[in-house]
Parts: sequence; C-alpha cells; structure tokens
Amino acid sequence: MNPDIRIIPLGGLGEIGKNMMAIECGDDIIVVDCGVQFPDDTMPGVDLIIPDVSYLVERIDRVRGILITHGHEDHIGALPFVLPQLSVPVYAPRLAHGFISAKLKEHRATRGATVEDIEPGIAYQFGEHMKVTWFRVCHSIPDAMGIAIETPSGVIIHTGDFKIDHTPVDGKTMDLAALAQYGTQGVLMLLSDSTYAEIPGYTTSEKVVGEALDRAIRDAPGRVMVATFASLISRIQLVVDAAARYNRKVSIVGRSMVDSVNVAVELGYLTIPEGILIPLNQSRGLPPEEVVLMTTGSQGEPTSALVRIANKDHREVTIMSGDTVIISATPIPGNELGVSRTIDNLLRQGATVLYDRIALVHVHGHASQEELKMVLSLVRPRYFVPVHGEYRHLMAHARLAWDLGLAESGIFVLEDGDVLQITDEGAEVVGSVPAGPIYIDGLTTHDNRSEVLSQRRSLSQDGVVVIVVNTDKHTGLPSSEPKVVASGFMDAEETVDLFQQLSAALSEEIKGSGHISCQPDELKSKVRETARKFLSSETHRRPIIIPILLGED
Amino acid sequence: MNPDIRIIPLGGLGEIGKNMMAIECGDDIIVVDCGVQFPDDTMPGVDLIIPDVSYLVERIDRVRGILITHGHEDHIGALPFVLPQLSVPVYAPRLAHGFISAKLKEHRATRGATVEDIEPGIAYQFGEHMKVTWFRVCHSIPDAMGIAIETPSGVIIHTGDFKIDHTPVDGKTMDLAALAQYGTQGVLMLLSDSTYAEIPGYTTSEKVVGEALDRAIRDAPGRVMVATFASLISRIQLVVDAAARYNRKVSIVGRSMVDSVNVAVELGYLTIPEGILIPLNQSRGLPPEEVVLMTTGSQGEPTSALVRIANKDHREVTIMSGDTVIISATPIPGNELGVSRTIDNLLRQGATVLYDRIALVHVHGHASQEELKMVLSLVRPRYFVPVHGEYRHLMAHARLAWDLGLAESGIFVLEDGDVLQITDEGAEVVGSVPAGPIYIDGLTTHDNRSEVLSQRRSLSQDGVVVIVVNTDKHTGLPSSEPKVVASGFMDAEETVDLFQQLSAALSEEIKGSGHISCQPDELKSKVRETARKFLSSETHRRPIIIPILLGED
Repeated sequence: MNPDIRIIPLGGLGEIGKNMMAIECGDDIIVVDCGVQFPDDTMPGVDLIIPDVSYLVERIDRVRGILITHGHEDHIGALPFVLPQLSVPVYAPRLAHGFISAKLKEHRATRGATVEDIEPGIAYQFGEHMKVTWFRVCHSIPDAMGIAIETPSGVIIHTGDFKIDHTPVDGKTMDLAALAQYGTQGVLMLLSDSTYAEIPGYTTSEKVVGEALDRAIRDAPGRVMVATFASLISRIQLVVDAAARYNRKVSIVGRSMVDSVNVAVELGYLTIPEGILIPLNQSRGLPPEEVVLMTTGSQGEPTSALVRIANKDHREVTIMSGDTVIISATPIPGNELGVSRTIDNLLRQGATVLYDRIALVHVHGHASQEELKMVLSLVRPRYFVPVHGEYRHLMAHARLAWDLGLAESGIFVLEDGDVLQITDEGAEVVGSVPAGPIYIDGLTTHDNRSEVLSQRRSLSQDGVVVIVVNTDKHTGLPSSEPKVVASGFMDAEETVDLFQQLSAALSEEIKGSGHISCQPDELKSKVRETARKFLSSETHRRPIIIPILLGED
Repeated sequence: MNPDIRIIPLGGLGEIGKNMMAIECGDDIIVVDCGVQFPDDTMPGVDLIIPDVSYLVERIDRVRGILITHGHEDHIGALPFVLPQLSVPVYAPRLAHGFISAKLKEHRATRGATVEDIEPGIAYQFGEHMKVTWFRVCHSIPDAMGIAIETPSGVIIHTGDFKIDHTPVDGKTMDLAALAQYGTQGVLMLLSDSTYAEIPGYTTSEKVVGEALDRAIRDAPGRVMVATFASLISRIQLVVDAAARYNRKVSIVGRSMVDSVNVAVELGYLTIPEGILIPLNQSRGLPPEEVVLMTTGSQGEPTSALVRIANKDHREVTIMSGDTVIISATPIPGNELGVSRTIDNLLRQGATVLYDRIALVHVHGHASQEELKMVLSLVRPRYFVPVHGEYRHLMAHARLAWDLGLAESGIFVLEDGDVLQITDEGAEVVGSVPAGPIYIDGLTTHDNRSEVLSQRRSLSQDGVVVIVVNTDKHTGLPSSEPKVVASGFMDAEETVDLFQQLSAALSEEIKGSGHISCQPDELKSKVRETARKFLSSETHRRPIIIPILLGED
C-alpha cells in the first residue's frame, strides 16, 4: 500500500495572493511557496496579510522544506514572517533566491534561515517519499518554475504561475516537453494556475509589448517615463534595449525597482549595456529626448515614485510638457481608482500618457483558456485541483477541465484550509485546517477573529465621540458635566452647541437613573446608549462612542 | 453685437458623476442637469456628493431653469438638495420627471419645487436669448435627450449621455437627423459625452443583450435571478419579455427597483403582460423553473438584495443548487472588488453565475469612438467641449476631435469651475468659479476644506487612542495617572501592559516638565507628542491621539 497523500492549500485558493500549498506524502510534508497578500479596502491600516502556518508549526518535524516557484511577492513575501516560526530550509530558483535574500535582510530575518539554489531538470529528494524536479515556465518574472513531485502513487504537478510564451524576452520557453513526458507516463494530479481562467484565447507574448515600447520610445519628443512592476525584469530589459537603440540613458526611480534591478543585474538576469544606466541627478543634465526614467507606481500606490510625480510631490522629478509617460501594467483589482487618478494628474500637467486601455503597453503573466487547456491536455491528470485565484477563477478552470473530458469526480475545487486526501481507493476532502488570514499590523499581528479591523471600519464611517464622565470615588455619581470630544465626526464649529446639549442630556439621564448608574459598567452603557440615540436623531450619524469613567477605580 | 456666452461646468468634467453645466447668454442662465456622485474609498462615511451651486445661488434672479437630459442619479440626484437653495423650475422628459417626483417625495423636498414635462422637438424659450429644443438620444434609460440651445451667436448642442443604438428596445432611435440639420445650418459649440471616448469601435446594441438573456432564461434549469441597475428599464423589459416567452413569473426584489418599475409602468415606459409580475412570497410557491427574480445589487452594494442573498443574509431568498444568477451590468470603477466577492459567494453556494467577463449579458449606455466621431462629423461645431468624464476621457475625446480636423484652438478641455467665454472675437477661458465637491454626511454637509474626511481616513488606518489627564483645578498639574483607552488600535488584551507603560511614561514626562505644562494647550501637545513617540516606537503604528484634560476649565 502506498503512503497517503494530502493536499492542503494554506493560501491562494479562493483569493488572489499569499500562495502556499502543503503537500504531504506519508510522514513527509513539503510546502510550495510562501506569499503575501496586499490589503484591500476592508482591511484598513493592515500592512500585509500572510498565511496561517499553525498547521505546519505543529508538525514542524515533518516539514522537509519550502519550495519556491518564482520570486514574486505573492510567492515569497511571507518568508520573513514565517521562517522565524517555521525554521525549515527554503529551496528556490536563483533569481527568486536573490530576491528572498534581499527581503530577509530588509526584515532582519536572516538568522537561522537557509536558502538553497535549485536548478530545473534536476531531481531533489525530500524525505522518504518525494522526489521533486523543477521545470521552466514563462511568467512575468524570469526564472519562474513549476514543480513535479514524484511519489509512490504517481506524479503531482504544480504549475506555479505560468503562461505559454513562445517568444519570451530571455529566450527561455516553457518546458512543455517535460509536461508531455510526465503526461505520457501518467500523472496523478495537476495543480494549475487559474488566475486568468475566465479569459478566452491566448495571452499575448511579451514580444508584442517590446514592439509597442520600442515605437513609443522612438517617437517620444521628450523624456520618457516607464512605470511597471519592480520585479518585471523582462519589461525593464525591453525598455533598456529600446533606450540603447535610440540613444537614451536610463535612470531608475523608486527604491524597490533599484533593489530588484541590482539583484537581477548581479545574477545575470538583466543585461544593461555599458553606460546606459545613469543616476537620476545626472539625467537632469541631459536633453529630454535622451532620457528614460524607469519608475515604480504602476498600481497608483500612494508612496510610489510615479504617484508622487503625478501629485507634484516628488523632490527630483517634475512633469514637463513633452514628457511621455508609459504605464506598462494593468491595474490589479482594487487599484483601478488609484491608477485612474494618477493618469488624470499626469495628463493635467501636460504629459502624454500611454496606458493599457489605449496602447498595447502591457501583457500579463498568466495563461488564458487555450494555454490552460494545452497543459491539461498534455498532462492528462487523474485528479485536477485548480489553484491560484478567486473562487470564480477556480470554477472557470474546473469547467475547462470538465469540457476537456476530465471526470467530474476527479476535479476538486478547494479553498484555503481544505484537506484533500488521496489513497489507493480514491480522493476525497476529509476535513479542514486553520487557514484564515493573518494580518501584519505594525509590530503586531491579528487574525480575522480580532475586532480591530471592524472597529477601524466603523471609525472611518462616522468617526469617534469620546465622553468622559468624572465620577465621585465614594458615591460613584458624576461629579461634573460630562466632557465630549470628537474626531472625524463633524466639523468642530458645528459641534460646539451639539456637544453642550449632549452633555446636558447625559447629566440629566444619569441623575434620573439614580443609584443603578453607580455600577461602572451600567453607567458606561447608559452613557453610550443615551449618546447614540441623541446623535443619531440630531445628525443621522452613528459614530463610535467611547465612554470613559474617571475615578471609578 | 451678440450677448456673450459663458459655459461653466459645475460638475462632471474631470470626474464621473454629479453632472451640472451652467450656460449663460447675456443675463440669462440655464443649468443642464443636477446630478449626484457616489463616494469612493477616499470619502469614508459620506452618503453622497453634490455640486457646489453657490455661483448660481448668488445669481438666482438670472437663473431661468434647470434642464434635465434624463433620469439617472448622476443627472437628477442632487435636485432634492439643490432645489431648497436654488428655487427655480425644473424641465425634464416625462420619465425623468417621474423619477424626480419620487425622489423629491422621498427626501421631503417637494415644497416649492416645480417640475415641468418637456417633449422633444418643441422649442422652449428661456429668458430673452435662449430657445431650447430637446432631441432624442439612446442611453441606458428610456426617454433620454440631448439639448439644442439656439442663441443669437449660434446653436449650442449638449448631447447629454448617449449612444447610437439602431435597435433600441423601445424602438426610439437617436435623432441623428436633427443633429445633421443643425450641422448644416452651422453649430457654434458641441458639448458631447466622453465617458467611453477611450474605447474604439461601436457600442453594442441593447438588442444583443436581449438575445443572450433570452437564451440564458430559456436554458436555465431552475430559478433565474437577474441583477441590474434599477433604472435600466430596457433591461427589465427584456427580462420580462423573455420570462413571458418561457412561462416564468417575475418578482422584483429591492426597494429601488420596485420604485423605478412602478414609475416606468405608470408612465408607460415598461410594458408588463398581465399576470407576469407576482409578489416575492407568491413566487416561492412556484416550481423553480417558473421563477425569475429581478434584483438590485449589480454593483456589489453591501445593503442591496443580491449581496444580502449572496451573503446568506436575505430574509426571503436563499440560493439553491440549480439557480442561475445573471449579473447584467459591469462594475463601475471602484466597485470591482464588491462585485467579485458577490460572484464568489454565489458560486460557493452552488449557483451558476453569468457575468460580463464570461457572457454577453450587459452593454453600457455610452458612445464609443466611432459614434463620437459620427456626432462630431454631423454637427461640425466651431467650438468643442468634451463633457462627462475623468480628465483622461475628456483628453481622449479632444484627441478624436483633433483627428477629425477640428482646429486645436476650437477645442477646450475644461474642468469643473472653469469659465469659458465666447464673444464675437472668439472663445477663451476667462477664470473660474467655486465648483468643489459638497459632501452630504447625515444631516450636515461639508466641503473639501473640512478636516472631517482626513480625520476619518487617519482613524481607519491605526485607530484612536484617547488619553485623559485629570488636572488639579488650582495647580493645573495632573492629579492622577493618565487614563488610556483605544478603539481600532490593537487587540485589547495586547494593550493592557502597553497602556500602563504609556500612562507611567506620561506621568513622568509631565512631572519632569514642571510648570510649563500647567498651560492646557502646552500640556495637551506634550501628552500627544509623548504618546505618539512611545506608541510609534513600541508598535510601529500611528493612531490618532486625543488628549483630554479634565478640570482645566
């Protein structure tokens, strides 16, 4: 009898981001990726979201390693937070390794962390039962890989994030031959990227963007600024090449892009001709038609270089008439308004702006339906688990598999925390483990049972009204009129009379209720309730009300 | 010499929503539309945004009327707030009139308001110099019109929102002949809808959606729920017709849709065959394959029917396996995440969900580039002002006009508040008037000089920490340890020690600073500064800090 296999998504299924998948075979556990997610508008003040790894921490002696597919934040970003709790070796492609090292250093989390390079096509043994071979895929970062895991029951293939690009910038195409070979031998399970499973057809090649960028840089009458993702090394390569072709120098603006360019150049993933890269202050001495600036900010992030430039808030760069700004990215859902505001502000200052809606200046890094079908057809797995995506993406991908003739009983749409068990008898979901979001919030963390986020959401709606009641230590009765202070509620001048009336109403109410109110908790809830009713009827607003009793203890 | 003409956008230029345009000719002012805007994530707690009409209020005796193009919120929604300040007659197409009356009643703002029906093709005189004729356009609501204003200097044409649909559901096509005729006679100025000026080609006809809805309703194995905009009467007509065709009954779920269906039926803009419409509770007695529910919630609005159904939070409707949900709308920018969450939650409960990305179940109501060019070509205006849109939409539309050969000196990309003056000598921007957003916030309003919104945004980031210092009335010195209370900051159990330390640190600091701190303002800022530093270094968070001194007055 073969050892049982268990597939446990700890992140990235039913959501975009914080990808992490535990794969168990007998006593051995390997973990694929360890990513972060960025907060949306329902998580105010949160810095980052990471997967809950308590399941792994409890089984630490069985975890053989964290296997990284590529160097994007949503695949490596949680390592600085997870490794201190889960001290196991990390195995990563070379470029991802470079990014991980920089990241661990930045978060002062290098102590005790081991990261090993892997090479595609070489089999690495993990524990007793698993032999893992990374294979090349194409994606919007170089050195992206999928993972094939040989187990006694058969091969499990995890694509990582991928697209099939026959003309990638670095010339390294996806290793479809390896997939075909596994497929011929028989594959137990396929886990495949679902991010773009709703989109018909093929994802356009990066080469097409190269042509558009080349034209734009060639024809630009003045300076060119190109904003893209810091890790989109192939895009940076395209811009550098076009700049060299048209006798322009390139300066990098924005810390994260400077960092990732340094790592990529050092490891040989980015080739910059001698003399092309110059510091920003030097570029200011050149005629505009000889300048290209590469910047961050393609997602409208408030503190990024491009957004500060658009808001006239950047110390070193000001938009001039004749500038061409290329936003070489598509807004990630939730960032649409920020990107739109940035474009508007650049246009208002006289720049020409090229962006995805009006020019082919971006392609994304995920497979569309025809590519997904190609992988499904080559691999012909017995079981299929769509991974990486909102629930609707997983469902769309499941439907594609079903359309290709996979048995419905072999398709599992899992979400974070589900435990899919595969035995010689078959596969079934046997339970679930904790896999909720962990919010990184300054130096603390909280999970979704915490009230902090719902309090913040309430505070943002109508602000806060603080009511201080000074009580007599002996009688428990108020010794003066309650004091009312607010923030984010109404304009201060509008609240002067209102708060006097509220204070009077509170005094009245407390006096009227007699000795009951001597109990601090009762008094607090009376104050809260009275204020809530008063403010709701006078203003139609429902601020958070904080009653504070002094002298109560 | 002809009287000068002044074009003053008071809303909708450089933004989507709250459309309002003042057009002056000599002493006469007419106002086109009076819309609201819905708040985005930078305006927490705001109910609605309306235009600033102070410019008009100061010139009330010159304002001849508010002329409505159609009954959408972003064209009529501000009337209940504006009419009490700006008591002038409103002129509107019949269906818009119906919606306006309902709206004024709902807001108890009927007193003194006059609304008059207009008919297309009839000239109405406004003041001494302006003769106005409404003309039919197509849009995502019936009875939509553009406006032609004859002045001594020539005709000004305002398209309102429009698209050119040769097969609209109500059979009423856009009056291109009227435009052509004005064009032949010579048009002084065109103001034209720019919302979709970035999109190449033609906007698809509503008829195509009808075919997709027909198929979806025909093939659905169980209940069908269709979510769309409450005012999208033509879509509701298509659903009702398909339901009748396949022997289904229709129930309307959601107050705003019930209201708009009532108005549309009463005025004859929606034709519902006898017996098709049944109350929701009655539909529960029918087999699922005989039921259609029309609901609100196509934008993922948290309190809408569809979202409550998706969240298992609707009293009367629960998703059953076999249900088909059709989201017959596209997310408005900013609503993407809400819509996406709603789709995911419906899928999780086993519904089949059809939405814009995977089925042709929606077309929008605005002209794409070829239609915009058609109107520009027919009208051939001397001056052109792109209206209705973000700045980038206006720029894209301006570029189309330029591509068609309009002189650059005749194209004016204006934003809210700009004053464009046209004299016999030519046209130029001569200044600007107040046109910032007015936020409706419960029973009060504030504008963008108010600190309330920035306070709320700060509160939402890291919450609030309140510090109460009880001072001795005579010495001004603290009489006990400061009390610290928080909301939205950190989990309560995590703050017990932290706040004790903070309180001790504050006591220390206040004592150390001696008599200076007897001044309330100085003491407050010392408390705030000390707490800020302490919390920032201990937690890396920067909550709003509210120091309260008791006994100070």
